[in-house]
Amino acid sequence: MDGYRHVLEIAVRFKDVDMMGHVNHANYLTYVEDARLKYYDAVFGTNTDWHTQHGLIMARIEIDYKLAIRFDDIIKVSTKCTKLGHKSFEMEWIIAKHSNQIELIAAQGKAIIVCYDYELNKAIDIPAERRLMLTEYEGLR
Amino acid sequence: MDGYRHVLEIAVRFKDVDMMGHVNHANYLTYVEDARLKYYDAVFGTNTDWHTQHGLIMARIEIDYKLAIRFDDIIKVSTKCTKLGHKSFEMEWIIAKHSNQIELIAAQGKAIIVCYDYELNKAIDIPAERRLMLTEYEGLR
Amino acid sequence: MDGYRHVLEIAVRFKDVDMMGHVNHANYLTYVEDARLKYYDAVFGTNTDWHTQHGLIMARIEIDYKLAIRFDDIIKVSTKCTKLGHKSFEMEWIIAKHSNQIELIAAQGKAIIVCYDYELNKAIDIPAERRLMLTEYEGLR
Amino acid sequence: MDGYRHVLEIAVRFKDVDMMGHVNHANYLTYVEDARLKYYDAVFGTNTDWHTQHGLIMARIEIDYKLAIRFDDIIKVSTKCTKLGHKSFEMEWIIAKHSNQIELIAAQGKAIIVCYDYELNKAIDIPAERRLMLTEYEGLR
Repeated sequence: MDGYRHVLEIAVRFKDVDMMGHVNHANYLTYVEDARLKYYDAVFGTNTDWHTQHGLIMARIEIDYKLAIRFDDIIKVSTKCTKLGHKSFEMEWIIAKHSNQIELIAAQGKAIIVCYDYELNKAIDIPAERRLMLTEYEGLR
Repeated sequence: MDGYRHVLEIAVRFKDVDMMGHVNHANYLTYVEDARLKYYDAVFGTNTDWHTQHGLIMARIEIDYKLAIRFDDIIKVSTKCTKLGHKSFEMEWIIAKHSNQIELIAAQGKAIIVCYDYELNKAIDIPAERRLMLTEYEGLR
Repeated sequence: MDGYRHVLEIAVRFKDVDMMGHVNHANYLTYVEDARLKYYDAVFGTNTDWHTQHGLIMARIEIDYKLAIRFDDIIKVSTKCTKLGHKSFEMEWIIAKHSNQIELIAAQGKAIIVCYDYELNKAIDIPAERRLMLTEYEGLR
Repeated sequence: MDGYRHVLEIAVRFKDVDMMGHVNHANYLTYVEDARLKYYDAVFGTNTDWHTQHGLIMARIEIDYKLAIRFDDIIKVSTKCTKLGHKSFEMEWIIAKHSNQIELIAAQGKAIIVCYDYELNKAIDIPAERRLMLTEYEGLR
């Protein structure tokens, strides 16, 4: 997907599919969650302790569902950070299905993530070091 | 919650809670899904065959997360239909936590649901009978 | 179910059902888990801190699957402690489906639970107070 | 793992981990389920229609939990068929954690799988062709 540096392939599980024969819509968030955590590893490093002042909290999600996903589909989630505010930043993502060399968008959406200090129990400004890591990774100004 | 006729209490499961000690954000959609299906039962009756021309497909969801939910919290999901289009209708919902006589909003959101004919494999106009059922249940014009 | 003092009704979720149209077999463990935690509340009280020397760890499970469970089934899990060892105790449980006044066994099984001290990071003898609570609740000698 | 021809690597998901910080014990069955389905693909081919006389039903599971699994662990499930009866066969599996070149057994167990004809709605003898496929794959007599 153009404009996305970070892509994660997801293995669809049998249990992800509900009685309609499609991946249940709540599992799309789970695919995106694993992609987002790998994105954080890529941007912030793998040794982050999320229980301290480095907490990142999901504040809002929007999803447009385009195509059903089935058990044998090959799924890739592309993730990027698109905008930084004071205490929060915006992420966008695409879930794509790959079949016969063709890539189809199964869903896309955006999220707002708030920086949270679990020791102080409150939202905090994006730490300067993290702001730099995000803008450099994404080539944002 | 004012303006909501339909409310379902949800039992939070131990497995719903992730390693941060809160109900994982994807499970909010699962709570809302069960509430929505009970809402459909209340409005359309319990004998619907969802695999025929009565399919209802999730096209879009927006959620604002307000408060964490914990294992012992008492949760209620309020659901209503707010608007009808040609082939789709809009629903809104609130997930509330109840503690010490107080009701707090844990999350709220809206969804767009598309009427789908699984035999023809395409979106269809809201069937006239269902349009009537929805508008009468909600007192919409 | 005869011989069981503790029974919990479980609400089957839409998402529990897999593409075969039945509750996925892994979810039986989730139903039993919630029943077991309520059982612990009934026997040991609701204020237990499971992260200290009061840890209880699943060491072994056996399940016999008898009948499929569907989305609309009414499910009850009966739980009891049947035997106490030095560091572990045995539990048995039945998952029953209720329909038309009839109770059918959907699954039954047993588990071995080990007492674990998370501060020392090792299995410990069943604390004397807990041994008493279990034997009194169950009328074991 | 010695004696196992079939091994599947599983990606642990963030949502698999519960509030104790370990993969919830029910998810072990989900890992084994995906491994078992890939095993069936390897032995019976990928075009099986499981809704016909080729149904395979879980009748019994036994699991011994040995070690906790964490979010970042690399997990492999080894699966084999060990014994064939008239209408059922037995499978064994090992869930191993891989860290620093070392392989540790996180859990192991066995299952009894019944051949089921969904058109006749009853258990059937293991079809001759499948019996041959299983014995040849495993080198059983």
